[in-house]
Amino acid sequence: MNEYVIGIDIGGTFTKMGFVNRDGNCFAESVTPTDAYDNVEDYLANLVKELKKSEDQLEGSYKIVGIGIGAPNGNYHKGTIENATNLKWRGVINFTDMVKEHYNLPVKLTNDANAAALGEMVYGGAQGMKDFIMITLGTGLGSGIVVNGDLVYGHDGFAGELGHVNVVENGRKCGCGNLGCLETYVSAPGIKRTVFELLASDSKGSDLVNYSFDELDSEMIYNAAVKNDPVALKAFEVTGRILGRKLADSVAHTSPEAVFLLGGLSKSGDYIFKPTKKYMEESVMGTFKNKVKILPSQLTDKNAAVMGSSALIWKELDK
Amino acid sequence: MNEYVIGIDIGGTFTKMGFVNRDGNCFAESVTPTDAYDNVEDYLANLVKELKKSEDQLEGSYKIVGIGIGAPNGNYHKGTIENATNLKWRGVINFTDMVKEHYNLPVKLTNDANAAALGEMVYGGAQGMKDFIMITLGTGLGSGIVVNGDLVYGHDGFAGELGHVNVVENGRKCGCGNLGCLETYVSAPGIKRTVFELLASDSKGSDLVNYSFDELDSEMIYNAAVKNDPVALKAFEVTGRILGRKLADSVAHTSPEAVFLLGGLSKSGDYIFKPTKKYMEESVMGTFKNKVKILPSQLTDKNAAVMGSSALIWKELDK
Repeated sequence: MNEYVIGIDIGGTFTKMGFVNRDGNCFAESVTPTDAYDNVEDYLANLVKELKKSEDQLEGSYKIVGIGIGAPNGNYHKGTIENATNLKWRGVINFTDMVKEHYNLPVKLTNDANAAALGEMVYGGAQGMKDFIMITLGTGLGSGIVVNGDLVYGHDGFAGELGHVNVVENGRKCGCGNLGCLETYVSAPGIKRTVFELLASDSKGSDLVNYSFDELDSEMIYNAAVKNDPVALKAFEVTGRILGRKLADSVAHTSPEAVFLLGGLSKSGDYIFKPTKKYMEESVMGTFKNKVKILPSQLTDKNAAVMGSSALIWKELDK
Repeated sequence: MNEYVIGIDIGGTFTKMGFVNRDGNCFAESVTPTDAYDNVEDYLANLVKELKKSEDQLEGSYKIVGIGIGAPNGNYHKGTIENATNLKWRGVINFTDMVKEHYNLPVKLTNDANAAALGEMVYGGAQGMKDFIMITLGTGLGSGIVVNGDLVYGHDGFAGELGHVNVVENGRKCGCGNLGCLETYVSAPGIKRTVFELLASDSKGSDLVNYSFDELDSEMIYNAAVKNDPVALKAFEVTGRILGRKLADSVAHTSPEAVFLLGGLSKSGDYIFKPTKKYMEESVMGTFKNKVKILPSQLTDKNAAVMGSSALIWKELDK
């Protein structure tokens, strides 16, 4: 009999789901809107309906052994989604309890970057690693820290929020309310903001002068870099520099074997990896020099968060 | 029968030892010089001789169940002391192997700040805590990070080197070779350097103008602060500000329940605790605000490192 975990990745706009087996193969995948529902009850009713529909596609005899969920501001200890700025549902939502009203199964929840880290550990490039850090580069910067084979959740269940460590005193305004957070520099919107700063200083020879702030995105910056656009190249250098210097701090905390980069910006290859590595090595304490790999996630082309969410349950069952 | 662990704290100048029972009571304590021996073989021969001498003082029937060692640049995974700048013995020393030639017992070694963290967890204020950070403030700044009840050793065994995260780009020269490390600002010599910087800027009304760089120490700065010396007060504010802002970063990594401060500077009470707490709260992400306690170590008056070193073995035996 096939065993599946339902993996659910709740994003601000869409929710992705799938039935993941122990080998990391994902069946009956589906996508449903997140932001179409003003209250979480309606959202969940639709989610369950969609899941039942997808379940009909599974072939042969099977058993569902649990549900793993990745969500913004997901709290592993409490199973709650708490004050997520990019979801419409305010306050503290007892999401796993709500799911359990529909499914009499183990339900585990964590934040999306933690789920990605778990996915990397169970199915991706971190297989066999005990200590590593996952950095997800998207609209924001998420992170999951693995120490001695386990995710670090911390006392309150929210550990691993490297997107919101300060990198520039009184720097750029962040969605979290603070100034100068890492993700205001290192993320898709972050590199765009850097491009606009660089253009303001010296726009000579750059094609990026032709785009409005709303038009420009990180893929266009990458394409410009490939054509040797000086501002685009500089923007990657600045971004990698800030990330690399900050990773040197993270290395001093948990001494990982590797740091994985996943998502949007990480697809820019050497443009982002080279300066990140260079400045990390430059800044890190001698003890750690030339020890820590910076690697692209091996889950890039798969659904990292759905797989990672399912791994929440598989890891639990293996205990 | 009484059971003891031999706890050994290797410092640059002195080595402290004791026979610690499970309740954290330390018997037959002794001190022997570290820096009197140019090679580690002679040092160890003397250490063993001293330990045998101390052992004679133990009363009643007893059993020694293991040896725990805290040492600068101690590597838990390998049992080595590696390139410790404040020891005379160069290179990589297989210290636990050497000790085992004298004692047929479990021998464990880690760095001194990790040992202090263990001591706090087993005998001090962190009893019952699963997630906390220990910061030792002495000649340098050491740290031990505890996650989910276990010390974080990391891939290479050297995790938790917060003294050497960068806080000021191209800042003060550090003994590790880098510039701007945390411990060049937050440590006994660090606050002295800050006093000299402040005096250079505005010495008005300060008694600290009367001391040479070699004369001044952190206790004198504390005593001046008690008398409302403006430069001394400012120096504590600056020091706490740098520490607090950096702790906000650490909180984002592992979300501890508390941060403990131990050693020299931490005895300055509110002068260091208040600004540290204030700037940590100001800088930390909203999720973590008003959640993390900053506490004085409860081991201050005892020998934290000897007790912590012994805890290496007690924790092992409890597994």
